[in-house]
Amino acid sequence: MSVESVVQFRVRYSETDQMGTYSNSSALDWFECGRTEFFRRTGTSYAEMEERGVLLPVVESYVKYRGRARYDDLLETTTTGRMVGKARIRCDVKIVHAGSGMPVAEGYTVHAFIDPAGKPIRAPEWFTKVMENAHADEH
Amino acid sequence: MSVESVVQFRVRYSETDQMGTYSNSSALDWFECGRTEFFRRTGTSYAEMEERGVLLPVVESYVKYRGRARYDDLLETTTTGRMVGKARIRCDVKIVHAGSGMPVAEGYTVHAFIDPAGKPIRAPEWFTKVMENAHADEH
Amino acid sequence: MSVESVVQFRVRYSETDQMGTYSNSSALDWFECGRTEFFRRTGTSYAEMEERGVLLPVVESYVKYRGRARYDDLLETTTTGRMVGKARIRCDVKIVHAGSGMPVAEGYTVHAFIDPAGKPIRAPEWFTKVMENAHADEH
Amino acid sequence: MSVESVVQFRVRYSETDQMGTYSNSSALDWFECGRTEFFRRTGTSYAEMEERGVLLPVVESYVKYRGRARYDDLLETTTTGRMVGKARIRCDVKIVHAGSGMPVAEGYTVHAFIDPAGKPIRAPEWFTKVMENAHADEH
Repeated sequence: MSVESVVQFRVRYSETDQMGTYSNSSALDWFECGRTEFFRRTGTSYAEMEERGVLLPVVESYVKYRGRARYDDLLETTTTGRMVGKARIRCDVKIVHAGSGMPVAEGYTVHAFIDPAGKPIRAPEWFTKVMENAHADEH
Repeated sequence: MSVESVVQFRVRYSETDQMGTYSNSSALDWFECGRTEFFRRTGTSYAEMEERGVLLPVVESYVKYRGRARYDDLLETTTTGRMVGKARIRCDVKIVHAGSGMPVAEGYTVHAFIDPAGKPIRAPEWFTKVMENAHADEH
Repeated sequence: MSVESVVQFRVRYSETDQMGTYSNSSALDWFECGRTEFFRRTGTSYAEMEERGVLLPVVESYVKYRGRARYDDLLETTTTGRMVGKARIRCDVKIVHAGSGMPVAEGYTVHAFIDPAGKPIRAPEWFTKVMENAHADEH
Repeated sequence: MSVESVVQFRVRYSETDQMGTYSNSSALDWFECGRTEFFRRTGTSYAEMEERGVLLPVVESYVKYRGRARYDDLLETTTTGRMVGKARIRCDVKIVHAGSGMPVAEGYTVHAFIDPAGKPIRAPEWFTKVMENAHADEH
């Protein structure tokens, strides 16, 4: 039961460092861009979820740096999300060069569902349904 | 009637770019670090000001890039603040290499006083007094 | 004699700050994204220019912050470039909300032409021609 | 056989996001600040290592987000490094609130030793010795 989303973007000059490749923390910003489109693909958007009082802070992140990416390179991010129990979601992300498919970075983030006061909550029913429906659409 | 504050910091690797110097937007982050210490020097802190309901968004910024700065270079920021009328403050910033005094960047930011709802307000009396007292301390 | 380029992008979560709007230094990163597409529109690309030994460091930047922009808002950047003498280029940038046209930020950056050793140079003839041709295309 | 280094710093305004805590990618920038001081503590510095032709790109990163940190909070980073075989180094990092010791984030980065051409190399003998000597100094 997972939802997948693909998005392309270009490496910014400010994201490069003096090694001539992307700065390692940029990978987490790109994971975030991938997640934004992933949530939109589920029919809702993360901005809307926050407005409804559902926040998804990152509780864990892992990145394996696979290859270089230079300024202006066109990259492609594939994000796959799946519920982990009732109160967490895990997003797996793969970033490759858009043309060649050469690997750039891959990894995941784990998110807890919390309310605006910071209290852990179960994933709301409407979101669980969205995840299930999105799954149904795919097959 | 101005208050001055000096602070040192090192260039982060993530702040360099493929030209081998600091990325241009980093200058505004460093201006911000300078302002943080500038406000603390006035006897209050910007974090406290926000808690008291006084926000100071940037409404204007200007940077003149004067020279290179590489990873791990020790830089020194001098921030001078002064009221512009009753509802704005201007912070002038100068960044140099700590050892040699060689110029890195200089410029300014202008900030409006607003309340948490975003409404423009006059600088609160306690802040104006702090600015005046800090001035008195110097001379 | 100017060239214009328009590009859209979304505000990243990491670009917001605790005021709930975009962090002021992000404006300079967005100006950079605008410039990247501006150069591509002239027929070359800035990545190519650097490979040919022409670097364009920012020597001056100015931003007027006009309005808020929240996470996931779709923004539109319009970049207009024009030569300033033989050795500098100025890029004027305007950022608005894509739907409503509501202003977000505007300003400019000035860039010097330098060689890889850091020596100021005149804009290469091929670039000046590109700027002129692009102009000719428009009218 | 490990070397440890402690460094304090304040959360920047630009590192907060609209949740009011630090943006998740900032943790990797802070890990980097910790590493910079860790390498200096070994008697050399990472800037010097790069000048000697030894580069240490991140090949893996893991972060566990443990607690909130707001603008201007004073944090403390403890970095412990140890060789992993002959060609990799792992840096374990723990970030806490400086006053209370309340946890903020912890995790690690793994780095490969490469030469300026990008070719994997063994850790140079002088660095291995530095790591051993630093260890000897501690006990």
